[in-house]
Amino acid sequence: MADAQRMVVIGGNATGMAAASHARRLRAPDELEIVVLERGDFTSYSSCGIPYWVAGDVGRAEDLVVRTPQEHRRRGLEVRMRTEATALDVERRRVRLRPSGAEADPSGEEWLGYDHLVLATGARPVRPSLPGVDAAGVHGVQTLDEGRALLHALEAEEAAEAEGPEGGRAGHASGRRREAVVIGAGYIGVEMSEALVRRGYAVTVLDQAEQPMNTLDPDMGVLVREAMEGMGITTVTGADVTALRASADGHVTEVVTGDGTAYPADVVVLGLGVRPETALARAAGLPVGDSGGLLTDLTQRVRGHRDIWAGGDCVEVLDLVAGRTRHVALGTHANKHGQVIGANVGGDYATFPGVVGTAVSKVCDLEIARTGLLERQASDLGLRHVAVTVESTSRAGYFPGAAPMHVKMLAEHRTGRLLGVQIVGREGAGKRVDVAAVALTAGLTVEQMTALDLGYAPPFSPVWDPVLVAARKATTAVRRAVRG
Amino acid sequence: MADAQRMVVIGGNATGMAAASHARRLRAPDELEIVVLERGDFTSYSSCGIPYWVAGDVGRAEDLVVRTPQEHRRRGLEVRMRTEATALDVERRRVRLRPSGAEADPSGEEWLGYDHLVLATGARPVRPSLPGVDAAGVHGVQTLDEGRALLHALEAEEAAEAEGPEGGRAGHASGRRREAVVIGAGYIGVEMSEALVRRGYAVTVLDQAEQPMNTLDPDMGVLVREAMEGMGITTVTGADVTALRASADGHVTEVVTGDGTAYPADVVVLGLGVRPETALARAAGLPVGDSGGLLTDLTQRVRGHRDIWAGGDCVEVLDLVAGRTRHVALGTHANKHGQVIGANVGGDYATFPGVVGTAVSKVCDLEIARTGLLERQASDLGLRHVAVTVESTSRAGYFPGAAPMHVKMLAEHRTGRLLGVQIVGREGAGKRVDVAAVALTAGLTVEQMTALDLGYAPPFSPVWDPVLVAARKATTAVRRAVRG
Repeated sequence: MADAQRMVVIGGNATGMAAASHARRLRAPDELEIVVLERGDFTSYSSCGIPYWVAGDVGRAEDLVVRTPQEHRRRGLEVRMRTEATALDVERRRVRLRPSGAEADPSGEEWLGYDHLVLATGARPVRPSLPGVDAAGVHGVQTLDEGRALLHALEAEEAAEAEGPEGGRAGHASGRRREAVVIGAGYIGVEMSEALVRRGYAVTVLDQAEQPMNTLDPDMGVLVREAMEGMGITTVTGADVTALRASADGHVTEVVTGDGTAYPADVVVLGLGVRPETALARAAGLPVGDSGGLLTDLTQRVRGHRDIWAGGDCVEVLDLVAGRTRHVALGTHANKHGQVIGANVGGDYATFPGVVGTAVSKVCDLEIARTGLLERQASDLGLRHVAVTVESTSRAGYFPGAAPMHVKMLAEHRTGRLLGVQIVGREGAGKRVDVAAVALTAGLTVEQMTALDLGYAPPFSPVWDPVLVAARKATTAVRRAVRG
Repeated sequence: MADAQRMVVIGGNATGMAAASHARRLRAPDELEIVVLERGDFTSYSSCGIPYWVAGDVGRAEDLVVRTPQEHRRRGLEVRMRTEATALDVERRRVRLRPSGAEADPSGEEWLGYDHLVLATGARPVRPSLPGVDAAGVHGVQTLDEGRALLHALEAEEAAEAEGPEGGRAGHASGRRREAVVIGAGYIGVEMSEALVRRGYAVTVLDQAEQPMNTLDPDMGVLVREAMEGMGITTVTGADVTALRASADGHVTEVVTGDGTAYPADVVVLGLGVRPETALARAAGLPVGDSGGLLTDLTQRVRGHRDIWAGGDCVEVLDLVAGRTRHVALGTHANKHGQVIGANVGGDYATFPGVVGTAVSKVCDLEIARTGLLERQASDLGLRHVAVTVESTSRAGYFPGAAPMHVKMLAEHRTGRLLGVQIVGREGAGKRVDVAAVALTAGLTVEQMTALDLGYAPPFSPVWDPVLVAARKATTAVRRAVRG
C-alpha cells in the first residue's frame, strides 16, 4: 500500500458512492485506497423515495437503500459511518474528521490526507429563520434520517391516538382529524401533501407564489392546484409564513401567515427546497456560484483545484438552455456526476456536459413535467420567445383510458429553437417530456420537431403525439411573430 | 369559379384528407376547388384502431372515424364517396372515375381534370397466392370496410353458435371452441391475435420467421413469444403456409403448412403486412422504388412531376438512419405527409425530412417498441456495429408496479453513433423509444446519450433511466471494439 494513492470521499450517497464504486472498478486497492466519510446512518439511498415511504408505498427505509455500508465494504471501499468532516486543508491536502454529533469533544478529531478529494456533501432543506421553526414536529425530508424522524413522529401520533384521548399529546383534542401543514408547494411539498393525505391527515399547503409548483408557469400550475384541491388538499397561495407557534411542551401547534391566519398543525413539513451544503468547501476558499453551489469544470473538477472533485446536490450545473450555471438538486444528476468523477479519478475520461432542466413528478394520478425554461426564466435571460399551449390526450381519443393532457411549449423568436416544455396530464403524460429534453440537447427547432418520428399506436398516443401538436402550433406562432 | 384551380385527391383517409383540409385552410373555394375521391364508405379513420374495435375496446366503427364525409363537406371540400379512379392521364392532367365496384359498366365513367393531383391511395394487405386464399372467412384488416367485414363474420359465428349446434355452419362441431388462425406475426398479426383471444377464440399464429415480431431482432422477439404463449396464443414459427382448405360451401376450414400440418380455422386473418397501392400510378408511368412505393421529393412531390403529389402508405419514405428510401405504412407518417402536401399546394411551404423507423405496439400488457436499425438491417447496409442488451425496470425498483424491461441498443463501430433501439417491457416501457427516435434524428452518439437529462422520479423511472443504462453499456462496448 506504500505507493497507493488515497481518494477521500465526503458524503456516502449518490455522487460519493457512485464515484467511489466506479473508481474501484477501474483501480485495484493496491493502486488506490478509497475512504468514504458519511455522517448519517445510510449510504446510497433514494431521497426521492421518501414521500413514497411516508405514504406507505414503500415498506421500509431499507427498501430505499441501493447498497449498504457492508455491501460497499465487500466491494473494496473503506466506509466510515457517522463520521463528519469538519475542516478541509487544501494546502496540505487533508481533511479533519470527527464522529457525527460529537461537537463538544475535539479529542475525537483526526486529520486524513488525500490525493483525490471528492466533495459529495449534498444539500440541506431550507429552514426559514422564523420564530418557532425549531419546534418539535417541524420536519425536513431531505435525508433518510430526516424521513425516518418524520415517520416515527407520525407513527407515534397515530399510536397515541389509538390509545384514546388521554394517551394523546396535550392539546391534541379527542376525535379531531390530525392536521398537517406543508410549507412550500414545490415537488417535495406536493409529494409530501399526497403522502400525508393518504396517511389520513387534513393537509394544508402554504406557498408564497401565485400557484403551486412554481417550477411551472402559473397557467400550468393552476391545473396542479385543481387536482390537489380535488383530492382534498387545502392549497393556499400568496401565503407568507411569518411564525410557527408551539405548545408549552415545545411541540408545534400552528403556522401563522402574514395576514394573521393561524393554521392548526400537528405536524409541519418543510418543502421549501434545498440549498447546496458547502460550508466546509467555502471555509476552505473553494469557488461557489450565484446559487450557492460549488463551481466545477465539465470533468467535475472544482475550478482551480486539480485534485478536488465535486458533484451532486452541492454543485452548480451548466444549464445548456439558459447558458449559465445554477443549482439543480436531482438524484439523476448526482449519480451521473459520481460516474464521471469515478471515471476521471480512476484514470479513464468522462464529462458531464450539463442539464436542460428536466423534472417530472406526480400527485395522485396527475403527472407533472417540465424541461428547459419557463416564460419567466426566458424573459429574465432576455430571450424573446413565443409560448403556446395545447390540450390533447395521452392515447388515441377513442381508446379506453384516453385522458386529457396539456402541453405548453416555448420557442425562441426568429430562430424557432425550442426553449422549453411543460406538461400536466394523466397516465403516460409525464415521461413525454423526455422527447423535449433530447430535442433541447440537440438544439432542434419547433419546426424540426413537427417531423419527429415518435412511436404511434392507439394505446400509446393519438396519431399526432401531443408534443407534435404543440410543436405545430409553436411553429405557426413563430412564423406569425416574425411576420408581425 | 372560372379562375379557380382544382386539386383532385385520390383517397379519403389520412393523407388525402389532411392534404385537402390543410389546403382548404390556406385557400378559399374561389381560389382552389378541392375534390376528394374515396372508393370506400369511410373517410379519415384510424386503421390502426381496427384490432381494438375487433377486441371490443372500441364500440363502433364510427368511433374510429375522425371526420365523416358530411363534416368534410361542411368544411368546403367536395367528397365523392364510393368513387374509384381507374386511370390517370398525366399529359392531359385528368383522372378517369367510376362508381366503386361497377367494373362491368364503362358508361358510368367520366374524366375529371386537375391542376394539382394528390395520390393517397394507401396500401393493400398482402394476400399470398395460395390455394384457397379467396375462401370465405379469410380476412384482411387494412381498411375499415375490411374490419367491418371481419367483425360481421365473427358476430355471425357467435350468433349461430348461441342458437345451438344445428344453427351453426356445416362442419362447425357443437361445443367446440372456435378457432382462429392468424397468418403473420408482425404488428397487425400480434394485435389481431390478442383481439381474437379476447373474443374467445383459440388462436394460432403462423409465421415463417424464427420468432414473432420480425420487426425486432430474434433475441428480443423471443420475449414477445413468451408473452404470447403466456396468454394462450399458440405461436408457430418457421411455418410456411402452403394452402388453405375450404368446406363444400366455400368457407375456410384449415390452414396447411409445408410440413403437412393442418391447423383448423373458423376464421383466418392475414397479418402479412401491406404493399403500396400504386397500380394507377404505375400504369401512368410514375416512378416507384425498390419496395414498390412511389418516389417523391422531400416536399412530397412525385419525382419528375410538378403537379402530382403523393404521401402515406403508397409512397416510400427516406429512412434517415439507413440512408435510403423504403416503404413504411404508418398513420402518423400519412398524416404528416398530408399536412406537408396541403401546405405546399396551398402556397405555403413544408417538407417531410424522413423517418427513423419508430414503431410501438402492445400485446396484452407487453409493450413492444423499436426505432432505427435491427442488427440484420445494419449488417445488410454494411454498417459495422456493436449491440448490447440490458434489463432494467420501468420505475424505481422499490416502487409499486416496477416491472422488468429489456432494452437493446445498437451503435456504430468507431463513431459510436446510435443506430437503433428495441424495447420489450411492461407499462411505461414502449414510449421510451421516443428518446432514441429523437437521438437518431439528431445523430447523437451513445456516449452523448449517457448524459441526457431525462425525467426522473421514482414512479416514472429508476434513477438511471433504462435507456441511459443501455447507452452506458453501449459506450463501453464501442470503446472495447475500437481497442480490440
